[in-house]
Amino acid sequence: MPIQINKERLLHHIESLAKIGGLPGGGVCRLAFSKEDKSGRDYVERLMRSLGLEIHIDPIGNLLGVRPGKSPNRLVLTGSHTDTVGTGGRYDGSLGVLAALEAIQTLNDQHIQTHHSIGVISFVNEEGVRFMPDMMGSLYLSGQISVEDVRTIVGTDNRTIGECLDELSYAGSDHFPAHIITCFLELHIEQGPVLLDNDLEIGVVDRVQGIRWEEISIKGESNHAGVTPMHRRKDAGYVAAAIAVGVRELTEQIEGLRATVGSVTLFPNLINVIPQEATLTVDLRHAVNHELQLAYERLQILIEGLAEQEGVQVASKTLADVNPVEFDSGCIKSVEQAAQALGYSYTKMISGAGHDAQIMASRWPASMIFVPSQGAISHNIKEYTLPEHVEAGANVLLHALLGQAMAEP
Amino acid sequence: MPIQINKERLLHHIESLAKIGGLPGGGVCRLAFSKEDKSGRDYVERLMRSLGLEIHIDPIGNLLGVRPGKSPNRLVLTGSHTDTVGTGGRYDGSLGVLAALEAIQTLNDQHIQTHHSIGVISFVNEEGVRFMPDMMGSLYLSGQISVEDVRTIVGTDNRTIGECLDELSYAGSDHFPAHIITCFLELHIEQGPVLLDNDLEIGVVDRVQGIRWEEISIKGESNHAGVTPMHRRKDAGYVAAAIAVGVRELTEQIEGLRATVGSVTLFPNLINVIPQEATLTVDLRHAVNHELQLAYERLQILIEGLAEQEGVQVASKTLADVNPVEFDSGCIKSVEQAAQALGYSYTKMISGAGHDAQIMASRWPASMIFVPSQGAISHNIKEYTLPEHVEAGANVLLHALLGQAMAEP
Repeated sequence: MPIQINKERLLHHIESLAKIGGLPGGGVCRLAFSKEDKSGRDYVERLMRSLGLEIHIDPIGNLLGVRPGKSPNRLVLTGSHTDTVGTGGRYDGSLGVLAALEAIQTLNDQHIQTHHSIGVISFVNEEGVRFMPDMMGSLYLSGQISVEDVRTIVGTDNRTIGECLDELSYAGSDHFPAHIITCFLELHIEQGPVLLDNDLEIGVVDRVQGIRWEEISIKGESNHAGVTPMHRRKDAGYVAAAIAVGVRELTEQIEGLRATVGSVTLFPNLINVIPQEATLTVDLRHAVNHELQLAYERLQILIEGLAEQEGVQVASKTLADVNPVEFDSGCIKSVEQAAQALGYSYTKMISGAGHDAQIMASRWPASMIFVPSQGAISHNIKEYTLPEHVEAGANVLLHALLGQAMAEP
Repeated sequence: MPIQINKERLLHHIESLAKIGGLPGGGVCRLAFSKEDKSGRDYVERLMRSLGLEIHIDPIGNLLGVRPGKSPNRLVLTGSHTDTVGTGGRYDGSLGVLAALEAIQTLNDQHIQTHHSIGVISFVNEEGVRFMPDMMGSLYLSGQISVEDVRTIVGTDNRTIGECLDELSYAGSDHFPAHIITCFLELHIEQGPVLLDNDLEIGVVDRVQGIRWEEISIKGESNHAGVTPMHRRKDAGYVAAAIAVGVRELTEQIEGLRATVGSVTLFPNLINVIPQEATLTVDLRHAVNHELQLAYERLQILIEGLAEQEGVQVASKTLADVNPVEFDSGCIKSVEQAAQALGYSYTKMISGAGHDAQIMASRWPASMIFVPSQGAISHNIKEYTLPEHVEAGANVLLHALLGQAMAEP
């Protein structure tokens, strides 16, 4: 019988942390670098200290607790974040941090010494709601953004991160031992419906979708809906609609493509006037870079064809362009073997949303573990994951960590 | 050589009337029942008096000038309106009134006595911008709205028409001799591009399009654009777009149909969120009632099919439903014969916009004469009709009136 985490203890910590910045109805508001966010990190820090971990806090506020192994010059890293969106839930991010600490507690209880050290990290500002960009803590750790850049970022309330860090004594002065990190594993709720739909307990995440955001502006000609013959029209609204329908057709042509037209704005937007201007957004996502690029190219062909056909002018602007990430086969294997060994039902799957693990993957071997979120609801006070799924995820994390940390150097 | 109107005299009156409520850039603002509108009507009344016409003003302010014929118990009626939209031009409405008076002047100059009397009418509130409904003057004359109803209508500035009539001494107490009207002819600028596109001088208007306005509300499910698989979506925005594309396809299936989706509103209208709600409007127009009805039925089938396919709820609300009007064959013939006799290029055509003549047609034989408006621009300070087209229209009106008024009883 493999060792197991203590479900009740983990649920207790999830509940306790959710009280910090707690909202009526069960949600949580711990916006990055706020007082509540700092209190959340303090809770995690106290828990780390009670587990005997070595505490490190870096200059932007990332928190790392290390449980030394026999050969302390190699560090198996896990964790997630404890900041939330404005009306967030209690699982997004927090589960990955608290389950990692529950795994540490279990190792302590069982007096297991690992070959490599195990580090639990709580990243700052994963959500990117108050301060852009999101996944900031992992961007900093992986060397993609500097302290100076972070400190001067201005938030939605016109304050800089530097001001917030100083006011809350949020920052530390430690430099994390990045050079000894061997891998990064992150447990997270799925947020989507794949595990639910297939009645599975564990997602072995082998890749993260890439994202391409386009904003398309169309200029046609405004005219009277009653007197303008169809062949004379330069209808910006029609072109916007035809693009949206074409975008849906792309998902039938390119397997695995997710494509959304979330925003459409017409001008003058009157019942009896042919629209002169239209602006729409297209959100394209695919786990394979080549396919994402293909979708983007077909979108451009679609737009140009419709523009010529209707005689309108179009301009397309890229608002986001993030490549898909393929996780490390060794890390994926650790997760899969853990799920198998523990007898959980699982599938290999793609992450639809962005996570710190995909940033970490740019520098270190990484992968993720997903557990179902009920109703596929997330970023919402109703976010909920069943206790048995919380337990399953934490057990898989424990054994995946053991798989990595017990490996001979 | 047939008798002709005096182009310069008519252009002079068009220019003079345009100064009343004149806007910088050459436009006109004479909103119905405003001071400027009353001044415009006063100008027309003075002109009628100078031509020796018998003046009548009815209780809602319609103005009628009558030139008696040999048998004064039959009245051939013509005219249009002199109210404008907020940023209107100098031809829409005014041309039909002033050209009618120029025709009277020409008959006076030529000492022509007609068998039937000829009446020139200036209808109140054709535009319906400040006070709904539009075409109010002709609705009243044809018995479709009462004085009491008109007086209690509240405008966009929260005043009633009754208050405005009283304040400006706008109303009269005459009852127009509706029972002796034999027909109604109206000269108007086309507003659309048909005459321009075909390089023609005169439109012999044989019908007016019917209108059907639908507002369609769609309720789907909001969800994360990244994590929601395509087959799980209930995308209200996609359904709105597919309806708009289907509406355009209807115009390819039903000859003569004009169909416009002028307004689309999505909620929450964010780049990475699948739209939960969408509202769009559909403007259907056709000159043949059966075809308009067919378009409406196919729209309903389209909506229901898409709703079922995507799993969204739809509701459709009719905002306007006006049947097409077929003008009187005798009146159409008078116009056509006049254009032919004068050697003008012409075509039989449909009116895309609504006019007093279509309301009059519900009770009396009627038809219209169109002349080109440059750039198909109307309801705009740039509205412009070439002097030679003004002249052509007034000459055709003169001879069409003669055709009707010289007919033996």
